[in-house]
Amino acid sequence: MMKVGIIGAGRIGKVHGESIANHLKGAEVAAMADPCWTGDSRAWAKSMEIPVLDDYHEILRDPSVDAVLICSSTQTHAPISIEAIRSGKHVFCEKPISHDLSEIKAVMQELEKHPVKYQVGFNRRFDHNFHAVRQAVADGRVGDIHIVKITSRDPDCPPISYVRVSGGLFMDMMIHDFDMVRYLTASDVKEVYVNAAVLVDPEIGRAGDVDTAIVTMRLSNGALAVIDNSRRAVYGYDQRAEVFGSMGQVAVENDLPSNAVVSTANGVTAEKPLHFFLERYMNAYAAEIGEFLNAIRDDEPVPVSANDGLQAVLIAVAANRSMAEHRPVKLSEIRF
Amino acid sequence: MMKVGIIGAGRIGKVHGESIANHLKGAEVAAMADPCWTGDSRAWAKSMEIPVLDDYHEILRDPSVDAVLICSSTQTHAPISIEAIRSGKHVFCEKPISHDLSEIKAVMQELEKHPVKYQVGFNRRFDHNFHAVRQAVADGRVGDIHIVKITSRDPDCPPISYVRVSGGLFMDMMIHDFDMVRYLTASDVKEVYVNAAVLVDPEIGRAGDVDTAIVTMRLSNGALAVIDNSRRAVYGYDQRAEVFGSMGQVAVENDLPSNAVVSTANGVTAEKPLHFFLERYMNAYAAEIGEFLNAIRDDEPVPVSANDGLQAVLIAVAANRSMAEHRPVKLSEIRF
Amino acid sequence: MMKVGIIGAGRIGKVHGESIANHLKGAEVAAMADPCWTGDSRAWAKSMEIPVLDDYHEILRDPSVDAVLICSSTQTHAPISIEAIRSGKHVFCEKPISHDLSEIKAVMQELEKHPVKYQVGFNRRFDHNFHAVRQAVADGRVGDIHIVKITSRDPDCPPISYVRVSGGLFMDMMIHDFDMVRYLTASDVKEVYVNAAVLVDPEIGRAGDVDTAIVTMRLSNGALAVIDNSRRAVYGYDQRAEVFGSMGQVAVENDLPSNAVVSTANGVTAEKPLHFFLERYMNAYAAEIGEFLNAIRDDEPVPVSANDGLQAVLIAVAANRSMAEHRPVKLSEIRF
Amino acid sequence: MMKVGIIGAGRIGKVHGESIANHLKGAEVAAMADPCWTGDSRAWAKSMEIPVLDDYHEILRDPSVDAVLICSSTQTHAPISIEAIRSGKHVFCEKPISHDLSEIKAVMQELEKHPVKYQVGFNRRFDHNFHAVRQAVADGRVGDIHIVKITSRDPDCPPISYVRVSGGLFMDMMIHDFDMVRYLTASDVKEVYVNAAVLVDPEIGRAGDVDTAIVTMRLSNGALAVIDNSRRAVYGYDQRAEVFGSMGQVAVENDLPSNAVVSTANGVTAEKPLHFFLERYMNAYAAEIGEFLNAIRDDEPVPVSANDGLQAVLIAVAANRSMAEHRPVKLSEIRF
Repeated sequence: MMKVGIIGAGRIGKVHGESIANHLKGAEVAAMADPCWTGDSRAWAKSMEIPVLDDYHEILRDPSVDAVLICSSTQTHAPISIEAIRSGKHVFCEKPISHDLSEIKAVMQELEKHPVKYQVGFNRRFDHNFHAVRQAVADGRVGDIHIVKITSRDPDCPPISYVRVSGGLFMDMMIHDFDMVRYLTASDVKEVYVNAAVLVDPEIGRAGDVDTAIVTMRLSNGALAVIDNSRRAVYGYDQRAEVFGSMGQVAVENDLPSNAVVSTANGVTAEKPLHFFLERYMNAYAAEIGEFLNAIRDDEPVPVSANDGLQAVLIAVAANRSMAEHRPVKLSEIRF
Repeated sequence: MMKVGIIGAGRIGKVHGESIANHLKGAEVAAMADPCWTGDSRAWAKSMEIPVLDDYHEILRDPSVDAVLICSSTQTHAPISIEAIRSGKHVFCEKPISHDLSEIKAVMQELEKHPVKYQVGFNRRFDHNFHAVRQAVADGRVGDIHIVKITSRDPDCPPISYVRVSGGLFMDMMIHDFDMVRYLTASDVKEVYVNAAVLVDPEIGRAGDVDTAIVTMRLSNGALAVIDNSRRAVYGYDQRAEVFGSMGQVAVENDLPSNAVVSTANGVTAEKPLHFFLERYMNAYAAEIGEFLNAIRDDEPVPVSANDGLQAVLIAVAANRSMAEHRPVKLSEIRF
Repeated sequence: MMKVGIIGAGRIGKVHGESIANHLKGAEVAAMADPCWTGDSRAWAKSMEIPVLDDYHEILRDPSVDAVLICSSTQTHAPISIEAIRSGKHVFCEKPISHDLSEIKAVMQELEKHPVKYQVGFNRRFDHNFHAVRQAVADGRVGDIHIVKITSRDPDCPPISYVRVSGGLFMDMMIHDFDMVRYLTASDVKEVYVNAAVLVDPEIGRAGDVDTAIVTMRLSNGALAVIDNSRRAVYGYDQRAEVFGSMGQVAVENDLPSNAVVSTANGVTAEKPLHFFLERYMNAYAAEIGEFLNAIRDDEPVPVSANDGLQAVLIAVAANRSMAEHRPVKLSEIRF
Repeated sequence: MMKVGIIGAGRIGKVHGESIANHLKGAEVAAMADPCWTGDSRAWAKSMEIPVLDDYHEILRDPSVDAVLICSSTQTHAPISIEAIRSGKHVFCEKPISHDLSEIKAVMQELEKHPVKYQVGFNRRFDHNFHAVRQAVADGRVGDIHIVKITSRDPDCPPISYVRVSGGLFMDMMIHDFDMVRYLTASDVKEVYVNAAVLVDPEIGRAGDVDTAIVTMRLSNGALAVIDNSRRAVYGYDQRAEVFGSMGQVAVENDLPSNAVVSTANGVTAEKPLHFFLERYMNAYAAEIGEFLNAIRDDEPVPVSANDGLQAVLIAVAANRSMAEHRPVKLSEIRF
């Protein structure tokens, strides 16, 4: 029985806790640590029979714990990663590792010294639809890749308080799509150009961020890519992708709560997409933890490496510079 | 914590065991009984930490057990139901209660004497798609019901040994669709006409059964219904329904493993439907047990009653007579 | 230049007139005859530069006319057919040839004496969707046919005055679907069972007809078929079909004015089907006349023969008897 | 009866000739002029009963001719336009008016002096799908526009000889999409950034052109837009668009030859898109000429003005500069 400690008792920490308890045989949650437990979270942990701690160091010191999941706030990801790696724990770290490239570098240097697994939380790689796209591409069904298109729109804006600390649209939201481009193509990104605006909510602009963006990219394999993001799609969480190549195209649409279609005198109506990431990616969250635990058990490489975490942040940094300087930016320009 | 005993360690018994362990808080499997455990089943029970028994009477005698799930072979459903009801247990019984109407009557008479819950395993009522159809109908979105159409085709024939004891296509397979007509319309069936043939496998004919059938029905509310079944749809488990009425139509299509679409020089290709009932209805199995346990906890009516179990069997009996006598048969002709 | 006379200046006569003028090179409308021209029809004919006549005999007597299209009221189809055949004209006759089997027999006997082409107006055989289904079946892509399903629903009821003279739902409306079953399967029908009701408009019932029906059939090739009709689908003209067999299924959905999909906070909405037969089958009407003229020019068999016209009426007669006698009726029971 | 002269007897000239003959009452083709008639074209004109001329000046001099369609090679569009305007004919000119902005300016100056109609051949505005998108946007169903996405891919590369004189991908192919962005949004374009490559055929690169491009734009109304083009989509002519805004999204997919879907053990297969522009836009070609003739008859503004022709070329010029200078280019930078 593998023992897993969870650091951070927010929404995503609980998602992983439930995945382990309900879907992943051979593993259990040894403890969950959070500096400020709410009553609800405490009740939840009790119902799951998960011990609660205030100080995550207790988890790191516990020799029976094999792996930790870092689900705390972003600015703590890198320092806790380093502590966890040093204490010999395998680490699953939510995205992004850090907004600061030098911190990611420090994590990666630590990994060179300690033979532990380190996986980054790009959960969408484990979604059935995106996985099917990747599979079709890997199987050569679209031939050489020419064009990648990703649409990713949230159902509604986050609170402005969150926007202020989020690192901005590219680091917080589009980072998933940057990783998706790399995942679907198995190629790195060479250059980024940003076309962004504040169209949804002027408050987001006053907080120094944008809410709508189209980003085009050139990839190392020569292909072109484009991502569009919006903070508010009133019809729900819009998550689509297509890969076009010399032999064809593979595309995925949104998943729906049901495929019921109602035809009346007013039109033919289907359901809106699954509302948001918890509904859409619930199975993907379980799968990513499952693969992380399998990689530990079998001593195999993790499916999403620290370098994958680094690359997505590099693209986000380049995107921010492109937006600031209103020009295409090569990733090779980014120093760290 | 509600304690549940499972009688029968076959495929469906395990499905329910996993549902309770993984998805249903506030309940646990107290024990599982089967007269002939296989090694695999034993190993599975051990991995789930479920005690194994040979004799289901131990479950019925255990005063700490609140409810039993009867997942044994069909001919045992009714006698075990009666024993369980007498021992004061709430009962979830897999479909059909019995092929024999007098046995169902005996179960229902027993239920009049003992105030326990009794739910029948028509799992498809709990499927997200069929539930959405029912909801649209109940919300009046299609108006008065005129036509109900159900397509239900298995990916492949069962073994001939199973066909021989199955009770025949109508009692074994189409019984789900008979119930679905009643569920979607909230109406009873008045008359049945069968158009059936052996088109898939002559062995099925030699075993005295048919493998392809179109059945039309008149409902108590005046609507017309049609069901088509095939034992073998080579493209997978085909599960669709539509309800048409004075104000419109609601229809559901098959669920797919992913919605990836590959376009090549040869055509535009989507995935086949989810293969079979375990893939398609896994969530529905968990939901039906969840609602059963909720009905016990809250002392509310169960969502699928003994009468629902009876009506579906009555329709199957009428269908068998229609096929034998090559004429429409009224349900009022069936004595029991 | 082939010369065509059109008998009957109603809606369908004009459709054929426009097809010949606009789409069919090498043919022209020599004249159009109708006993009671409306001002609108006269104006239309003038705009098309088509000579108008009161007496169709003038067309039959005109030696320069190669072919006639009989688009007059149903009860005149057979007598005019016989006159036209005797006058040596090739004949395209709208469906049905007659409600009366003896009249059809008389037409067929006349055809044995005169070497003219005779095509019946089952326009749906020339629709791109149904043609694609037929092609897939003919190409063996679904293997042996097991189940045929046709849905055919009008957007609204015809006037009661029309219902009274229409010959009833089976002879007037479902006759197209009877022919479609034969076309898609290249098989004859052996037995029919009708399940019908008055659910849309009680006036239709008072006129001695039904407005909703599900009809099941056994075919000569062993397959089973089912057709459902409604006189009123509030969402528009519903025209779908599927053929299921040993190697798979081919299915067609409705055509839409555009495939635009609007996603809002209220749902995801597509357009309703093309409203009615003129919108849906406009190209099919041109194609059937085109193939008729080609068959004359090349002296090839017509694509829809007098026997096809007979068989569809035979099925309708059997359907009427099934409804009257509430039992399955074999086509071999029908004398003529 | 309006008389129309057609200048240029290539593919598109014939399309317009057939539209007028077959679909547009109240108009006829007076003559067709081409300096080098092929035998096929001559035969076609004869079958259509259209007089053929070598010198288009005869058409311009003919006082009975009301309007001319300029369907000759691109470099002649502007000079013939000017001659035709001076001769007092209404002009329909195929796109683009010219690759040279000063020539377009000259055409527009001529139009200020002569009160004739001048329409540019952006046929896709008349397609049923794109029209439905525009209608939904104009009706306010998507609210304020935030993101426009257009995919436009040809089924195969044109001959290299054509590529050399085409003006390049942006002037020849994407110009339709530039216009589509303006049509769908009723907004002008402010800035363009090009991401382009030679991925399909190195010969195209050697001819100085690209074959794959993603272009992002900022519009005057603040919205962002993206277009992707490929010279070769092996699955057929890929023509899609979506407009996303504050209240939702409207999207259109490809049209298919039929909507037949074949399900077999190998998967679920639909048809490929309609092959190329003649199949996909045949009705749109007829509609654009119809609206041109209506605008003349009713003395109403044409639906696609000379300024619309200018703006699309301006965007193409800016796109070429963006590609050459690898930076975003504002339309205000373009002098003419």
